[in-house]
Amino acid sequence: MTSLTIPELIGIKRDGGSFTEAQIHHLIEGFTASRVTDYQMTALAMAIYLNGMSPKETAALTLAMRDSGRVVSLGGPERIYVDKHSTGGVGDKVSICLAPIVAACGVRVPMVSGRGLGHTGGTLDKLEAIPGFSVDMTVEAFIEQTNRIGCALIGQTADIAPADKRLYALRDVTGTVASIPLITASILSKKLAEGIGGLVLDVKVGRGAFMQTLEDARELAGSLVRVGHLAKKKVTAVLTTMDSPLGRTIGNALETREAIELLHDQAPADLKEITFVLGAEMLRLAGVAKTESEARARMQDTITSGAARAKLAEIVTAQGGDARVVEEPDRLAKSKTRVAVKASKAGFVHGIDAMEVGLTGVAMGAGRTRADQAVDPAVGIVLHAVRGDRVAEGDTLAELHVQARKGTKEWADRVAAAYAIKKTRPGVQPLVLDVIRR
Amino acid sequence: MTSLTIPELIGIKRDGGSFTEAQIHHLIEGFTASRVTDYQMTALAMAIYLNGMSPKETAALTLAMRDSGRVVSLGGPERIYVDKHSTGGVGDKVSICLAPIVAACGVRVPMVSGRGLGHTGGTLDKLEAIPGFSVDMTVEAFIEQTNRIGCALIGQTADIAPADKRLYALRDVTGTVASIPLITASILSKKLAEGIGGLVLDVKVGRGAFMQTLEDARELAGSLVRVGHLAKKKVTAVLTTMDSPLGRTIGNALETREAIELLHDQAPADLKEITFVLGAEMLRLAGVAKTESEARARMQDTITSGAARAKLAEIVTAQGGDARVVEEPDRLAKSKTRVAVKASKAGFVHGIDAMEVGLTGVAMGAGRTRADQAVDPAVGIVLHAVRGDRVAEGDTLAELHVQARKGTKEWADRVAAAYAIKKTRPGVQPLVLDVIRR
Repeated sequence: MTSLTIPELIGIKRDGGSFTEAQIHHLIEGFTASRVTDYQMTALAMAIYLNGMSPKETAALTLAMRDSGRVVSLGGPERIYVDKHSTGGVGDKVSICLAPIVAACGVRVPMVSGRGLGHTGGTLDKLEAIPGFSVDMTVEAFIEQTNRIGCALIGQTADIAPADKRLYALRDVTGTVASIPLITASILSKKLAEGIGGLVLDVKVGRGAFMQTLEDARELAGSLVRVGHLAKKKVTAVLTTMDSPLGRTIGNALETREAIELLHDQAPADLKEITFVLGAEMLRLAGVAKTESEARARMQDTITSGAARAKLAEIVTAQGGDARVVEEPDRLAKSKTRVAVKASKAGFVHGIDAMEVGLTGVAMGAGRTRADQAVDPAVGIVLHAVRGDRVAEGDTLAELHVQARKGTKEWADRVAAAYAIKKTRPGVQPLVLDVIRR
Repeated sequence: MTSLTIPELIGIKRDGGSFTEAQIHHLIEGFTASRVTDYQMTALAMAIYLNGMSPKETAALTLAMRDSGRVVSLGGPERIYVDKHSTGGVGDKVSICLAPIVAACGVRVPMVSGRGLGHTGGTLDKLEAIPGFSVDMTVEAFIEQTNRIGCALIGQTADIAPADKRLYALRDVTGTVASIPLITASILSKKLAEGIGGLVLDVKVGRGAFMQTLEDARELAGSLVRVGHLAKKKVTAVLTTMDSPLGRTIGNALETREAIELLHDQAPADLKEITFVLGAEMLRLAGVAKTESEARARMQDTITSGAARAKLAEIVTAQGGDARVVEEPDRLAKSKTRVAVKASKAGFVHGIDAMEVGLTGVAMGAGRTRADQAVDPAVGIVLHAVRGDRVAEGDTLAELHVQARKGTKEWADRVAAAYAIKKTRPGVQPLVLDVIRR
């Protein structure tokens, strides 16, 4: 394979050189087999962080990490399997409404999601707000369900890309998370192992996102699309704004409810628009629609006809959940009480700091600060006033859904402070900042 | 102390920032107590390798590593305790003759040395060629002997700078050895823990040295002197040439014998000159001599009078060795047989590749490729022709001291090939390239 020692291989990247494909495979195979130690891997991760990687190297790293575990073959023609992945935001419940809509259009959606960590929520936690819903499934059951009903919504399994799982845990504690090649390889290795033909990436940009500037987000999106292409997959990246939370809810049951309401065509405009933009790309990658307007029309049909709700009910039933929540979302968990957050001055809402609202949600018990913490599905925040709304002093800006009123003042103050209220009306803020295709 | 997490602290250096003294102490204390993991430390080491450290940061790192274990107090006025450290070369047996000469002049020499690894030899292995000589000693015995007879020659103990020992082992396998701040902190932390007032550094430059260019060596020397000053110690760095081996012997008993012969005033000129240059600096730092010529005269006196030999005998006896080797070096181990290395052409010797000769010595059993290997004290190489000598075809260039003739041809060929023989006489090569003082 390669006659260089591990320290010598690390030295190549340390000195700003490029790895061959064989060298990258040797390193990741060694890491998977524990011949390359954690302390060697983190030194290498720091060298990659500081000296970068070419798209070719990143593609090799992605494929090596994909090949560290099981690579699923879904059985049908690869093209029809399309997934969506978001880099993470606040109030981002898109997967829960998008997956059944797109599946109802004939795309097969084998979706592997994550849990909330830090200020961002996770699709798995939101799905688990549905009584009985299980996100654990064998790979065989995942393949079978995806082909039988067009969609399965599960968590990462131990046998998919184990090298990514270990490397991510190490990066998290060594200051090497924010590296474009490492993020690219982490996202794509897992997704490519699902056996998909196409992938739509929602790259969030702004205060509540991992990428805080458009420039950084564009760099990541470009890397994801380039490396996806090198790995022979169709990948589209959509850059969407994440300065304020998406939709009007933060918290697991609240967000699942809002996603279900979208399937009843009763959803905030921003949530529907993001869902449709991402869904239209998925339909086009799968070859189910030729143009964006055709795709939008087909998606709207699944809502109007009730097909999307029926598809979600089918998914929920298949995964052990109570499918009555689709028609009766009141069955979702509710908090014992609510606390109003009042406006301390009149004016127009210019934005709601997504990071601050997300962290307040975590403090309330809707999210977690450590991976082993439990979440309370019922708690969260409902935004009554959003960007562009005019408010008077004393108006209710938001409501906290809590289990007890005691100790909620700090949270209410934080949410109130997250509102930017100014005298003048704000300008229009685009939801979609860019679409990057190969 | 500091409210930043370990990943955030790593992020400071990753982003090219500077640590405060408190942050560095927090990191090294955490590392010593295993709150900072090995994989965090190696990521940090790579960030330091690539983004560097200021002299102030390096001084803080040095002191934090010194303080990770026991810091010896030798009892007397600090100024009189002076040590010498070499960055490592081939044929470098200077410590063994230098320590008794300098101690005989009234300087106290608490010398902690290392073992051979890679192509370079180690003082401990050479001392152990003396029958019975022990380099293991408690810190108390080390202090007592240094004060009683002026010198003790020991190996690194577990309680001196343990953070350095662990970090060095990690750097060795993660491609982070060749970092000026990390080398500086590693060398000085151990030396400062000895309780010395002054330190003379022999920074080797050339083919057989760690620093292969004068520029790199000057950078390391400057860093050592600056950081030593910031740590309130008197430090002088002498840059000496290491293209060819020092003296005429490579191998443990052979080198110890050559060092003893210097005390009989029968040594190659280069070995004596390097010993006197370093010794003169030690005498000046200790305040025992005011000028270089005064220092040289005092050192020559200890040889002529036999005081240096008596001092070495005293040290050897104190450490359990057979002191008769000082007057009768024939008592040192000898190999069973010798193999001549012949010149294949006539001309002048321009140099002997120190790296190649060092590696041949390791292959013969004089050194080790892994830390747990044993060495054979008797084997080695004696150089009969050195730089500047005129040789005829068929002349003996060198002799291999081996235990059996079988399988020695490859070694003889390697040594022969290490000789650069040209038609013209070589120019003069200075032994001392620079002296860097504060």
